[in-house]
Amino acid sequence: MDRIPILKMGRLLLVTIQVDMHDQLAITLQDDLTERIVKDRAQGVLIDISALDIVDSFIGRMISNTASMARILDASTVLVGMQPAVAITLVELGMALVGVQTALNVEQGIRLLERPSD
Amino acid sequence: MDRIPILKMGRLLLVTIQVDMHDQLAITLQDDLTERIVKDRAQGVLIDISALDIVDSFIGRMISNTASMARILDASTVLVGMQPAVAITLVELGMALVGVQTALNVEQGIRLLERPSD
Repeated sequence: MDRIPILKMGRLLLVTIQVDMHDQLAITLQDDLTERIVKDRAQGVLIDISALDIVDSFIGRMISNTASMARILDASTVLVGMQPAVAITLVELGMALVGVQTALNVEQGIRLLERPSD
Repeated sequence: MDRIPILKMGRLLLVTIQVDMHDQLAITLQDDLTERIVKDRAQGVLIDISALDIVDSFIGRMISNTASMARILDASTVLVGMQPAVAITLVELGMALVGVQTALNVEQGIRLLERPSD
C-alpha cells in the first residue's frame, strides 16, 4: 500500500482513509491530492474517515494541512463519516479542525459542496 | 482494520478496496454489503480497485461472488479502476469475471449504473 486512491466524481474528489497513515503515505496523499485538484479543476474534496476508530495528532494535523492546501487551491474540503470517539479525541488533543467543514456522510458532504458557497 | 467502509451515494454504494484482503475481511465485506444493499435499497454497487497493483485468485473470486450476491439482491455491480496488469493477471488466472461489468473509473461506473438497464 503506497498510495491512497483519489476518486473523481464530477467536480469533486473523494479520498477514503482506511489505513493507518504514516509519514510517507501522508506526504504522497498531499502531493497527489494537490496535483489532482489542479488537474481535474476540482472545487471540492471529500475525506471519508468512517473507517478510522481512532485518530492521533498526526492524522489530525495531516487532515488540517490537507484542507489548508486545498483551500489555497480554491477547493473546499469536507470531512465525512467521523465517529463519535474520534470527535472526542480530536478535541481532547486540542485539534478542533478550525476551517474544516464536516458532514455526517458522503451524501451530505456532496450536498454541502454543491451548495453555492456563501 | 477490521472492515472496509461502504459509502452511500444516492441509490449506489461505493466500496474502495485499498488493502490486501484476507478471509475474515472478505466475509465481513460481503456481510456488510449485502445488508446495506437491502437496507439502503441500493440499485448498484461500485467496487473501486484502483489501489490494487496485483490481485490473486482469492480477490478475483471474492469480487465475483460479491457481484453474484448483489445480483440476486437486484443490484448491479460495476468494477472500476482496474489497472492493466490486474486485467492480465485475472485472465491468466482463468478468471474472466463473467457477469461483472467494468468501467474505467468511478464516474463512468456511476454513468453505467444510472443508465436504464437493457
